[in-house]
This record gives sequence, C-alpha cells and structure tokens, in this order.
Amino acid sequence: MKIADKTITSLLPILLVASALRADPLPSWEETPAKTEIIQFVESTTDPESDSYVPPAERIATFDNDGTLWSEQPMYSQLFFIFDRVNELAPKHPDWKTQEPFASVLKGDYAKALSGGDKAIMELVAATSSGMTSEEYSDAVRDWIKTAKNPEKKMLYTDMVFQPMLELLTYLRAEGYKTYIVSGGGIDFMRVFAEEVYGIPPEQVVGSELQAKFAMQDGVPVMIKESSLDFIDDKAGKPLGIYQHIGRRPIFAAGNSDGDMQMLQYTTVRRSSDDDLPRFGLLVHHDDADREWAYDRDSHFGKLDKALDAASDNDWLVVSMKDDWVSIYPAASSASSKE
Amino acid sequence: MKIADKTITSLLPILLVASALRADPLPSWEETPAKTEIIQFVESTTDPESDSYVPPAERIATFDNDGTLWSEQPMYSQLFFIFDRVNELAPKHPDWKTQEPFASVLKGDYAKALSGGDKAIMELVAATSSGMTSEEYSDAVRDWIKTAKNPEKKMLYTDMVFQPMLELLTYLRAEGYKTYIVSGGGIDFMRVFAEEVYGIPPEQVVGSELQAKFAMQDGVPVMIKESSLDFIDDKAGKPLGIYQHIGRRPIFAAGNSDGDMQMLQYTTVRRSSDDDLPRFGLLVHHDDADREWAYDRDSHFGKLDKALDAASDNDWLVVSMKDDWVSIYPAASSASSKE
Ligand SMILES: [Ca+2]
Ligand SMILES: [Ca+2]
Repeated sequence: MKIADKTITSLLPILLVASALRADPLPSWEETPAKTEIIQFVESTTDPESDSYVPPAERIATFDNDGTLWSEQPMYSQLFFIFDRVNELAPKHPDWKTQEPFASVLKGDYAKALSGGDKAIMELVAATSSGMTSEEYSDAVRDWIKTAKNPEKKMLYTDMVFQPMLELLTYLRAEGYKTYIVSGGGIDFMRVFAEEVYGIPPEQVVGSELQAKFAMQDGVPVMIKESSLDFIDDKAGKPLGIYQHIGRRPIFAAGNSDGDMQMLQYTTVRRSSDDDLPRFGLLVHHDDADREWAYDRDSHFGKLDKALDAASDNDWLVVSMKDDWVSIYPAASSASSKE
Repeated sequence: MKIADKTITSLLPILLVASALRADPLPSWEETPAKTEIIQFVESTTDPESDSYVPPAERIATFDNDGTLWSEQPMYSQLFFIFDRVNELAPKHPDWKTQEPFASVLKGDYAKALSGGDKAIMELVAATSSGMTSEEYSDAVRDWIKTAKNPEKKMLYTDMVFQPMLELLTYLRAEGYKTYIVSGGGIDFMRVFAEEVYGIPPEQVVGSELQAKFAMQDGVPVMIKESSLDFIDDKAGKPLGIYQHIGRRPIFAAGNSDGDMQMLQYTTVRRSSDDDLPRFGLLVHHDDADREWAYDRDSHFGKLDKALDAASDNDWLVVSMKDDWVSIYPAASSASSKE
C-alpha cells in the first residue's frame, strides 16, 4: 500500500504536465468567446491555486436533455416512441380506432393527437407503459431506440446528439465534475441510453416519473409502472428534482428553453454574500436552420423566451449553434459538419 | 497524455500486489463465518478472473441507517431531534401547552406523544420543519447533532455509529462499490451528516421526504419544506426509492428490521435464470444487551420478525452484534469494546 501510494504521489507532476499538454478538450467548438468562457470556468474551478477553486464534491453539473444534448424537432423523441408503441399495441385495442387521442395517432395525425394537451399525452403515456414492469418498459425502449429514426433527418435518435455537448460532458468529467441529466422527459426512457450515449449512469438521471409500485410477481420482486404522474421534472420541478435526487446545488447548469429557467436560477443566483462558489449557466440557442433547426420564442417544443430575456441579467452564456459549433452531430453523420 | 497513461498502466501490477498485501479490511469483525462470507463475496465480485466478477458500474450497495449504521434505541435519533425542536419552538406556540401531541412532548412524556401514531408524528414533523427553507432545516440539524446526546448512553449520536459497519462501507468503496443510504428517516436529516460520518455524499442518500416547493424569496431561489409527506422510504417504499434514485438493483443490501425486507428481496431474489450477478443480503441482529441493546421480534423500534424468518430461505447473512463484532462503536468510545 505504501509503495503504491508513494508511486502515485510521485506521478502527480507528470499527470499535471500531461493535463497542460492535453489536446483541445472542445474540438467541435469554434474559437469564439463561448469556448473561452467555458474553458476559463472549468480551469479556474479545478486549479487548487485559483481563488475560484471548487472542491470535487461540489462540482455538480446538470444538463437538460431534449434540445440541449440532442435534437427535439419536429417533436420530442419520446413522443415518437409513444406513438410507435400505440401503433404496436393497437391490434389488442380495437376501440382505439375510434377513441381519441388514439384514433389520431393511428391515422398518423400527431398534431391532432397532441391537441388534447397534457391530458391527451398522459392518456397515451398510461396506455403505453402502465402495468408494465420497469424492466419490460426498459426493454421496449432499448429495442425501439436501436432502429427508430427521426422522420425529418432520417437519422437514429442516438445519432442526433450534439457532438460539442458530448465533448463538454467528457471535459467536465475529466476535470472531476459529476454530470447529471435533469430533463422533463421520462426518467426510465432516458436511463436506457444515457450511460451508453452520454456516459451518464442511471443514478445520475433525473426526469419526470409515473407512480410505481413494488409487487411480488410469481415470487419475483418487481416495480410496476402505474398510470398517474408522480413528478413533472420541468420548470420549478427541475430545482425540486435536483434537491430530491442530488441534495446540493449544481455549480454548472445547461438548458435550452424556458423549462430550464428555474434550474439555471437555482444554480447561479447567489443566496447571500457567503455564497461565493463560481457558477455557470448555459443556454443552447437553436439558430442553425441549415444544420439543425432554428427556433426560439415561438416554438411549440423547446420554447426559449423568458429564459432568453433572463440570460443577460443573470450572465448566462447563450451558445449559438450556428456560430459557436464546428459541427452539430458526431462525425459519422458527416452531413452536419460545416464545409 | 501518452506518457502518463503508459506510466499508470505499468503501475497496475504494483497496485494489485499492494491490494493483496493490504491489512485486514474488517478489523472490528471477529474471525467468524460472517466476516469470511463478506470478504469472499467482495473478493469474488471484484476479481476480473472470477466467475462472479461484477463490473464496477453494477457494484451498488444500499444500507439502511437506523439500527444498521447507528443505534436506534430507546427511539430513533430523528425523533429526539423533533422533540428538542418542539421544546425550542414552544415559546412561539403557547397553544402547544394544551394541544396534543405537543403537550406530552413538552412534559417529556414521549411515549404518550407517540401513542398518536403516524398522525401525531406527522403533526410534529410538520410543526418543526414545514415553512423552512431546506438550508434553514439543514442548519438546524447541523447545530443539533453537534451537541445532542442519547439519553441512555450519554453519547453524541454521531459517536453511536457501528465501527464494523463503517469498516464495511470503507471496504466496499475501496473495492469499487458505490455505497448508498436507503432509510425510513428523513432525507434532509441524514444528508447533513452522512458525508462526514459515513463518507456517503448527499446524492447517495435516499430517505423519506416531505413535499417541497421552489420559490423566489427576495430574489433568491429556495426550496421550502411543506407539511405533507411526499414519500415514505420504508418497507415496499425502499425498493421504490432505489428504483427512483438509483435506477438499478443493488447487488448488496444491509438492514436490521422488517422495514428492510423488501429491499433485501429486491436486491437478492433472482428475476430469471439470466439474472446471474452475485447478490448479498445482510441483517444486523441486535443481540448484545451489554454493549448496545438486545431486541428483535417484539421491539417497537426496529422490529425484526418476518425478515428474520425470511433470512434463511433467502440465504441472507444474519450478523450477531455479540458474536461477530469485536467492538460496537468507534474507538474513542472505549466502553463499547469487549474486554
Ligand atoms: Ca429542453
Ligand atoms: Ca433500521
């Protein structure tokens, strides 16, 4: 033990030099002020000599998912999953042919299906997941996400993640940050691919939740998903989810819509003069109609209006996908790179 | 980067040898089969050559708190905190002098105060925490736990933790396990000292929860504790809390009462023939009246009855505090060591 400890300690200078010589941690970010600001924040919070040094335990970074880590147009990916499930289950439910919102889904009229608002969505969620065990649900998501494609981009959803954000997640983790997803999407939906796609384990995913109950099924203990909502992880629900799951305030939070405003406030607004940890708020601005989609104040999905106004008051970084990112999607999707 | 990586790789054999030579990881455990069984499980799950090897991401271990990590007699420590808070707040509530359950608390008749059952306890919880911000509440716990003492042992509550269990937590973490608390106690109560006392950070504490709401208070975003229960992390609530917070099944779970039975079932009962990860259930049996307390099937706090019956069927390890532990509390409390 002694030997190993000593050897590791003597290695530290080498590791520090290696870190300084490390290649650009954010190669898919343009050399604009956005990139500089992020790197300066991360370097200052992890340099023990800096006034802004933050102990590793406090290096909590939270990321919204839809529109922040992956695309959310023409609608949230989870809605496509739900609609595909409705079609899959329809043979067992002949009544759906005439019963809204199912009838519209079966006709492919998604806009009409969604026109029923939250109530319609909850009916669809309940019909396609309640009564399943958590494993059965996860298996269904796992199967779906392997082959389902975005109807406009004709790409797998897991290929429509933002390469610059993947680099940011990796960079933060390499610098001792613990990265979390805090999303309005369903927690069980995201947990299936978060580890593989984002490097974020299930215990670091916070999301909306259906009620669930423990049951012994043929002698096997399982969790059964129920039909009523337990928690909506959006707007004021995001800091609540952070408080419940993480139990301390992040020092870094990234989002892309008004649903993230309270999370960014909770992360960055100082409590008192003693509250002096450095803090960073980031908003991804979808302004690249050529490579992705351009939308903000008037969008149905991912509306960015109040939070955009709040950004300058709160000194949040607004990232332009068009100007600040070299590429949008990972390299395999060459179509998304600038020429 | 290359240099550092190569040096680390060449270090691996030294680290492995150092690990094999390491001193006894459980010095406060007697040389009984309990200790052997634990060490064999940990070694086999962490040895890449073993058939029982478990990848680090799946090494999740969950621990009940009251009666498993610290003493819970003559009643749960959190109840003492609540009763002390009632006394502290009483001058502002003259009506409490004649209103139950407060009147009995103020007279020091805790048994009578608790005779009102869950309803009485919830009234006391609400009266002593609702309306506070999460920070105000944490500060109150932090102040209290620095000086409050168990009325029978005259020891600080944080000194009444079980030394053998502290060693087990440290041992599991050293072997790549992620350790969690999953307790019926209040999540905010435990988070205050879990990191310092158990080495478990707030994000790895699961507990019972009051509802809470996000609010802007004088421009500062805070969480306000409310008066109704949101979640009871006991019995079937424990696997539910694990599912919600962790999102995967533990492979190791430790408890001491019937409230832990479902957590141990969820952890150890195989789902199917494919479910072949090694699994470990542990029950701490309070059978040491001399050094701690002796109680099980008839105890009001920490009743161990059904779970004790289930232990042999499920192959759970029942740890005898009397026979399997060299000492109960950390060394400073010399009174608790065997002569
Ligand atoms: Ca979003
Ligand atoms: Ca217990």
